[in-house]
Amino acid sequence: MSTNIKKVAVFTSGGDSPGMNAAIRSVVRTCAYHSLECIAIHRGYQGMIEGDFEAMNARSVKDIINRGGTFLRSARSMEFKTKEGRLKAYNNLKENGIDAIVAIGGDGTFTGAMIFSKEFGIPIIGIPGTIDNDIVGTSHTLGYDTALNTVCDAIDKIRDTASSHDRLFFVEVMGRDVGHIALNAGIGAGAEEILIPEENLGLERLLESLERSRRSGKTSSIVIVAEGDNIGKNVFELKDYVNEHLPFYDVRVSVLGHMQRGGSPTCFDRVLASRMGVKAVESLLDGESNKMVGLLNDKMELTPLEEAIKGHTEINHELLKVSDIMSI
Amino acid sequence: MSTNIKKVAVFTSGGDSPGMNAAIRSVVRTCAYHSLECIAIHRGYQGMIEGDFEAMNARSVKDIINRGGTFLRSARSMEFKTKEGRLKAYNNLKENGIDAIVAIGGDGTFTGAMIFSKEFGIPIIGIPGTIDNDIVGTSHTLGYDTALNTVCDAIDKIRDTASSHDRLFFVEVMGRDVGHIALNAGIGAGAEEILIPEENLGLERLLESLERSRRSGKTSSIVIVAEGDNIGKNVFELKDYVNEHLPFYDVRVSVLGHMQRGGSPTCFDRVLASRMGVKAVESLLDGESNKMVGLLNDKMELTPLEEAIKGHTEINHELLKVSDIMSI
Amino acid sequence: MSTNIKKVAVFTSGGDSPGMNAAIRSVVRTCAYHSLECIAIHRGYQGMIEGDFEAMNARSVKDIINRGGTFLRSARSMEFKTKEGRLKAYNNLKENGIDAIVAIGGDGTFTGAMIFSKEFGIPIIGIPGTIDNDIVGTSHTLGYDTALNTVCDAIDKIRDTASSHDRLFFVEVMGRDVGHIALNAGIGAGAEEILIPEENLGLERLLESLERSRRSGKTSSIVIVAEGDNIGKNVFELKDYVNEHLPFYDVRVSVLGHMQRGGSPTCFDRVLASRMGVKAVESLLDGESNKMVGLLNDKMELTPLEEAIKGHTEINHELLKVSDIMSI
Amino acid sequence: MSTNIKKVAVFTSGGDSPGMNAAIRSVVRTCAYHSLECIAIHRGYQGMIEGDFEAMNARSVKDIINRGGTFLRSARSMEFKTKEGRLKAYNNLKENGIDAIVAIGGDGTFTGAMIFSKEFGIPIIGIPGTIDNDIVGTSHTLGYDTALNTVCDAIDKIRDTASSHDRLFFVEVMGRDVGHIALNAGIGAGAEEILIPEENLGLERLLESLERSRRSGKTSSIVIVAEGDNIGKNVFELKDYVNEHLPFYDVRVSVLGHMQRGGSPTCFDRVLASRMGVKAVESLLDGESNKMVGLLNDKMELTPLEEAIKGHTEINHELLKVSDIMSI
Repeated sequence: MSTNIKKVAVFTSGGDSPGMNAAIRSVVRTCAYHSLECIAIHRGYQGMIEGDFEAMNARSVKDIINRGGTFLRSARSMEFKTKEGRLKAYNNLKENGIDAIVAIGGDGTFTGAMIFSKEFGIPIIGIPGTIDNDIVGTSHTLGYDTALNTVCDAIDKIRDTASSHDRLFFVEVMGRDVGHIALNAGIGAGAEEILIPEENLGLERLLESLERSRRSGKTSSIVIVAEGDNIGKNVFELKDYVNEHLPFYDVRVSVLGHMQRGGSPTCFDRVLASRMGVKAVESLLDGESNKMVGLLNDKMELTPLEEAIKGHTEINHELLKVSDIMSI
Repeated sequence: MSTNIKKVAVFTSGGDSPGMNAAIRSVVRTCAYHSLECIAIHRGYQGMIEGDFEAMNARSVKDIINRGGTFLRSARSMEFKTKEGRLKAYNNLKENGIDAIVAIGGDGTFTGAMIFSKEFGIPIIGIPGTIDNDIVGTSHTLGYDTALNTVCDAIDKIRDTASSHDRLFFVEVMGRDVGHIALNAGIGAGAEEILIPEENLGLERLLESLERSRRSGKTSSIVIVAEGDNIGKNVFELKDYVNEHLPFYDVRVSVLGHMQRGGSPTCFDRVLASRMGVKAVESLLDGESNKMVGLLNDKMELTPLEEAIKGHTEINHELLKVSDIMSI
Repeated sequence: MSTNIKKVAVFTSGGDSPGMNAAIRSVVRTCAYHSLECIAIHRGYQGMIEGDFEAMNARSVKDIINRGGTFLRSARSMEFKTKEGRLKAYNNLKENGIDAIVAIGGDGTFTGAMIFSKEFGIPIIGIPGTIDNDIVGTSHTLGYDTALNTVCDAIDKIRDTASSHDRLFFVEVMGRDVGHIALNAGIGAGAEEILIPEENLGLERLLESLERSRRSGKTSSIVIVAEGDNIGKNVFELKDYVNEHLPFYDVRVSVLGHMQRGGSPTCFDRVLASRMGVKAVESLLDGESNKMVGLLNDKMELTPLEEAIKGHTEINHELLKVSDIMSI
Repeated sequence: MSTNIKKVAVFTSGGDSPGMNAAIRSVVRTCAYHSLECIAIHRGYQGMIEGDFEAMNARSVKDIINRGGTFLRSARSMEFKTKEGRLKAYNNLKENGIDAIVAIGGDGTFTGAMIFSKEFGIPIIGIPGTIDNDIVGTSHTLGYDTALNTVCDAIDKIRDTASSHDRLFFVEVMGRDVGHIALNAGIGAGAEEILIPEENLGLERLLESLERSRRSGKTSSIVIVAEGDNIGKNVFELKDYVNEHLPFYDVRVSVLGHMQRGGSPTCFDRVLASRMGVKAVESLLDGESNKMVGLLNDKMELTPLEEAIKGHTEINHELLKVSDIMSI
């Protein structure tokens, strides 16, 4: 640890996810541990441009490890997409003596960080905070485990009423480009079928599966649908389609929505956040930049930001098979 | 307790609610306690017509007090609306030696019970099981307290993300005719405004309130909307309306949906269910019929079914004022 | 509302309970609503003596309605038990222009409030915050409903392992002088027996009950024991006693402890806290003093502090019978 | 898949853990999927000796994926430790045409399985079900993730009251030989110090740490103590020791106890259970025996039972450092 870093800034940007507060806490405390000053930037890149800064010490972050959302808040910044905006941001950092940055967020956050770091030479380390688990270079993004449990709990409740009334439910969960939440929460909640962006099983297969499960004695069923399923129909259209083709089913729809982004983080997400914050600050001290910390085979590893935002993590094909077997 | 009742049947009907299993358990065990036989009827009135009966003993209902839904299931029965259907049902009861019935459900269930009891002279006591709390004769219906907590928890999660992004959320909760869930969960979740069927504050007042709260320094807000709000717009239309008139707000919508009906019952609902089950069976033994057990001033009381289904419970006006003050 | 009150102080004292933060929030916002200044006193009476005051406005209490504990903290104050201490406290209030006080706490808090109010003539209204539900003049103290659910949830978990291993568990819950938590959570959790301060059933009856339930086919059992049970043995001694007399049982003990005091308040406790805060401030404006706000028959009512702390609320005898029937 | 296996038995043994029901469900459904018969053995090895068998089909295991404990129950069997007992067990299996076994449990279960399989040549695959995470060959045992969250939630509640009263809490969590629960839940709950079997930091270091944190402005602290901490004192002795040496602390103790073993499994544990059940049955079909399925680098892998029960999994030293930094 031989760099000249004296003052580190931390911010959150993009969609919030459970564990972001725990990650901020970890960055702040790791700074304190290594006798670095720490500055929190409110409202992401926009706050950087507006100089919305706050000095942090170890006590500033007490009682937040278990809170959802991000107390530094997040915001979209059109201005940061312009060179002028970024220059303003850089000047603010410089005036405040900030040497390095920890950026907590997803794709968009990291893209901004790469451009900014390249333009002004300031070291940046990213922490992947998003419930979608769609970042390359980490087996788990921050908030993903919490979201899985939120979805499972919600579907457990829906199942109570589905079972009581012999109903078929289409439940939409988050996941525009990737099906991790749908696939894992679907298995965890005992779903009959799981529709994800990565696989197009087709509508016939869905009907067949529903008919087969009816014949096998199931009296109620849950179908999990990722927002970005590629079957070409949203949950409401799926309901109409099934209503038409399988009239014996009493079909209902539930869109879980934004509650999936909130809630007190699970123990896993709190520990992950704590590890990532330590690794992020210590990587800066090691002279690293433009990289993201991630969990790979239960170790903290660095991945270039460039790679992290390229493409998506692949779905685990073993899980597709498990889901298939479980719904027999 | 001087009646000749020897065998009691119990069933659930209509929309399910948390605590129904606990109520069935209580009916079954109270029968055992008083040395009565107990028969469970599956799938409500339809099961009565089809003779879908099962003998119960005290052990049959173990490990269900904490489970959502109803293990006896519920079903709509068109056939029970006909005289022929009801005769079939009665013959099944008679063949099985059933002397009396405990019916767990809401308005529709009780209406059916009244007609049936009048036609065939069989004693029936009702237990109000519905999350809507819209039954006269009880301060709390079974499942209402659980639903309030489910809604509060969900909005707590939504608030995390609302606060992180300075957003305005319209959250739709159950309540077609009554606003109890919206009003109580709205206060519990710290909502900015609460739109219920009982009050039409008008769209102007909503806009004013949102503008005022923006000026007062609030950066995010939650508006709770009961399904049956009478402002004349559903949550999606409200979103569009506000988007148009208050363009500075980033407005989102969340419809909580059927998860509100499920989940493990709260301690309150489990105790209430246990009390209601005891009271229901002992009322039958006391020669009562065509009445509903209810909680009034923390005591178990009987109300004629006829009254129970007439009109709706009134909203507590003190709560409207509290809500108003809290959102300052 | 014709008093000359301009500035109201609020504090929490004694054991904390879920809902205290929601009550503080309500007091603060009701003051804002009625254009009163509001001062928070940290650490109860001790903070009053030390002048640990903080000005509050409506925004000061955002995002706390759902948090357990009390952000104003609580502390024991030996000094307040002396006349000198109380004089110091009064002078601090005077210097800060405080006209009236809302005191949130239990027996001890109210006793202090009565003495203080009598000595210095400052109006005080109490809000009953304690999980024990042992205050006369309210059907529910703040935090009681939350504690019941915490206990129920914990016993649900213990039951999982009890059922898996055919074990007998003695579970100790809070309640030194009153058995409300034990009795209600015991019914809610489906306990076999419930031992409370108000009833001494005797050890023989316990053994008989356990033997009978064994014979009736139960393979596992939970006995809830209030701290202050008057059977003359604590949970560990009960375990030894049963081990000796009923050797076929594999007996375990669990003491739930302080987790019963914490946690996010239930919807009920949040609404109750909001109502109580409004009523407390408006009662001060109405010229009331030395009274406690309480919930009686679902209405906000005032009770003289003197009566509130006299004796204890009685156990509901109907519940004892329900418990007895349920454990058949 | 070329074996002659036609009928598979499944049982749970040893301490129960959340996810066992989900694993049984997975074994049963994977058998159905591969057209194998499946027999459930109640009460572990004792049930095997007594012939307490039950035929299972895909529908037998509905609605159990989310339930804690094990519906097949568990039991200690002294008889199985004798050759005669095991012979009786084998004869029962043979009479029932059982070709292979899936054994769900921990160390003791696997030791029994190894001896039995060697004696009678029947193929056995193990699934590691225990909350302690002390089995070699899997990064996560079934139930461990759920236990972490149960512990975190309980400490969150204790923290509410600790913060409100400026208290120091010693919280005892499970872990006789390994500190995984203490270390992870301790980080997750923001504990000040974590005492585990793998490290003896000494009492002086504990006092120093508590004094330092007091000076740094912390007003309350939580110390997590694994049952098997090797500091030579249990939580009650630790309390007395600290009371004596740091009299300014108001010290309390909480023993979380058996609730740690129960509860609805997390999404992670449900998915893990589902994967393990599939892998266990398919491994039998592949001709494997005397092996345990485990999760290694997010893949299902086999480890010889002999290795699985040898020694313990090591503590992650990165986490010790993270814990140290976080408590600054």
